[in-house]
Amino acid sequence: MEEKVIKAALLGLGTVGTGVYKVLKKQEEEMTAKIGCKVKIAKILVRNLEKAAAKVEDASILTNCWEDIITDPSIEIVIELIGGINPAKRYILEALKAGKHVVSANKDLIAADGKELLDAAGASHVDFLFEAAVAGGIPIIRPLKQCLAGNHLTEVMGIVNGTTNFILTKMSQEGMEFADALALATELGYAEADPTADIDGLDAGRKVAILASVAFNSRVVFDDVYIEGITKISAKDIRYAKEMGCAIKLLGVARNTEDGVEAYVCPMLIPSSHPLAAVNDSYNAVFVHGDAVEDAMFFGRGAGELPTASAVVGDVFDIVRNIQADCCGRIGCTCYKELPVKRMEDTYNRYFLRLHVEDRCGVLAEMTEVFAKYRVSVAQIIQRDKVDDGCAEVVVITAKVREGDFKTAIEELSNRASVKKISRTIRVYGK
Amino acid sequence: MEEKVIKAALLGLGTVGTGVYKVLKKQEEEMTAKIGCKVKIAKILVRNLEKAAAKVEDASILTNCWEDIITDPSIEIVIELIGGINPAKRYILEALKAGKHVVSANKDLIAADGKELLDAAGASHVDFLFEAAVAGGIPIIRPLKQCLAGNHLTEVMGIVNGTTNFILTKMSQEGMEFADALALATELGYAEADPTADIDGLDAGRKVAILASVAFNSRVVFDDVYIEGITKISAKDIRYAKEMGCAIKLLGVARNTEDGVEAYVCPMLIPSSHPLAAVNDSYNAVFVHGDAVEDAMFFGRGAGELPTASAVVGDVFDIVRNIQADCCGRIGCTCYKELPVKRMEDTYNRYFLRLHVEDRCGVLAEMTEVFAKYRVSVAQIIQRDKVDDGCAEVVVITAKVREGDFKTAIEELSNRASVKKISRTIRVYGK
Repeated sequence: MEEKVIKAALLGLGTVGTGVYKVLKKQEEEMTAKIGCKVKIAKILVRNLEKAAAKVEDASILTNCWEDIITDPSIEIVIELIGGINPAKRYILEALKAGKHVVSANKDLIAADGKELLDAAGASHVDFLFEAAVAGGIPIIRPLKQCLAGNHLTEVMGIVNGTTNFILTKMSQEGMEFADALALATELGYAEADPTADIDGLDAGRKVAILASVAFNSRVVFDDVYIEGITKISAKDIRYAKEMGCAIKLLGVARNTEDGVEAYVCPMLIPSSHPLAAVNDSYNAVFVHGDAVEDAMFFGRGAGELPTASAVVGDVFDIVRNIQADCCGRIGCTCYKELPVKRMEDTYNRYFLRLHVEDRCGVLAEMTEVFAKYRVSVAQIIQRDKVDDGCAEVVVITAKVREGDFKTAIEELSNRASVKKISRTIRVYGK
Repeated sequence: MEEKVIKAALLGLGTVGTGVYKVLKKQEEEMTAKIGCKVKIAKILVRNLEKAAAKVEDASILTNCWEDIITDPSIEIVIELIGGINPAKRYILEALKAGKHVVSANKDLIAADGKELLDAAGASHVDFLFEAAVAGGIPIIRPLKQCLAGNHLTEVMGIVNGTTNFILTKMSQEGMEFADALALATELGYAEADPTADIDGLDAGRKVAILASVAFNSRVVFDDVYIEGITKISAKDIRYAKEMGCAIKLLGVARNTEDGVEAYVCPMLIPSSHPLAAVNDSYNAVFVHGDAVEDAMFFGRGAGELPTASAVVGDVFDIVRNIQADCCGRIGCTCYKELPVKRMEDTYNRYFLRLHVEDRCGVLAEMTEVFAKYRVSVAQIIQRDKVDDGCAEVVVITAKVREGDFKTAIEELSNRASVKKISRTIRVYGK
């Protein structure tokens, strides 16, 4: 008996594309038993045919012409792994309109135009799946949309960028400064030649937008997410944080509060006892809180050829099962609410504050007086002997305060003669 | 416009049943937007109508007669939360044969008769889902069957019993002995009046059978799983383990090796650096290794009213989506292989061994000579000054060795005059 075959096209044969090609090859023998038919990569769109030829068994499936794929009615699934907004967006929309199912790992595009893509899929009754767009190989989108659907989710947060987690781990474990840790990350292939999207928090911000949209059933786009990177964090900050019982991690946080959604990415202190504090190196982890499940965490490889391919192929297999059960589009866009997104100024946080003050009597009193004026209370304080500029270094962790008020207090503080330098302010994660 | 309603029946109104009732109530308003229709609990099977009446808004939905449910064609989904083999098995089989979908949290039954239940569901083209049967609220069955379907999974292991994890945590963090920690667990409601199924590892064994079946696509039943509980572990064992860089956890382990499946539950030493070593109190966590995803971990509440209800309601919502997309039975039994299950004697492990030996020259040489005869090599060793019986206490961690060989070595050792007592042998988790 001839095995049933479903044809797919791959757009892009970079790291993840190559991974998907490999994983599908490895799964070839078991596919029919597992999902009822074989998936065959019938065409691969590449820029450089010659370079790509070395990566595949049969170079005749390579093409540099999108028309070859979009006009081929035998191709039912398009796997978009080009990344970036264009031409990926055009390809995906054309594929969806042509009745093809699409799997994408394109966080830039989904964080910006997720609604448009999901609407297009819905209009054509086809699937648009993107498990690989957040936290690589870690199953998170499907758990949120299905396993945890019985929850009112109030928080989804975590470490969703492996490059910065590797850098912060090196800074913490080996006392390296940011620049040296970044250089090491680049050398080892954890950071790209242009690391901006990672170290400035943009990549994490895109993932937060997608996670918030899925978890809270309300569209949050990249532009809604407040973003700060890790470039200003120093080994000294990390040492003080440790002394105060915390690690520093680049966290993506999305909260579903009564007065709107909070969505931000920034370096944060997190108590060493929190499971996320122990997530090191390039690992990712996403923490979820819901009214029924309480706390759940999903941990694993957030990037890489095969882990990301694992998520992509999981989506492809799901589509194959849908095609066979004739129920494509079974779960589409799940954003049925329109929740407002709060301004960062209106969020409440605790803050780590490191500053240099004149080393004389009454300076602390002056500081706490300014704090009191703006409802900032001190939860922890460390004062050290004179530092190089003849001043004392004071490190404070505040109680919870409205960000806008804290900023005003800091501004007023920085204008006081007794305060020589505000070296750092870092938010502290916690209830 | 009238909202579409799908009717469900609840079997059992104990802890989880009450949780499911509450979660469905809480979700009532959003259901239609979220999954396209309302789910209504139309009947609840209970033993004691009077006692149950206090737990529901409308006591008229209560019944103590299964016939009321099975003969009601308007009920499309049966949620079995009675537990145990009978009458749960009869109810489920009758419901499936009558074309009703079934959600169950019944690990005892699924670990024993999973194939029969899934086959019955398959024959009727209905869904039989059981996310709540393993690790409570933590999404793990659906991630294994769908998100990670592109992997050849070689290992699934973890902490899948909250009661014993709570006990071991207290023994580790507060130096309590087993009996005291168990008494505390009972007092706090973490252990049942009869704690046998938890402390003897039976509950964990059932979950390992289910996890192995789903992860390796080959049926593993409860009787295939080798089981040891934690009743013999002492605070001293835990102290020595710490000294050797390890925690002691009750681990459920399933491995897919070239010569068969390994499936066992036993207390094990695990390096303190392993993410599972930091999973404390009553939390559960499941670790998965696949050829594409590499390592992934799923962490959360493994039991409890609402966390378990979260998993049950996730399954119910999935069935509702299937009913509306007309694709019930879309993913049924995924055991398409028949892999052999290895005997425990044929597994390879490292071992922690604590023994009392005569405190004289040559005794260690005698011990290592016996070890050498059975290919046991020593990886770590600690020798302490005289203990109470005038002997020296020696603690050894071995290199990897076949369990059968290790046992023979221990037997021979225990017959030597110089060995006064073999106090403990505990397996060590690791590659």
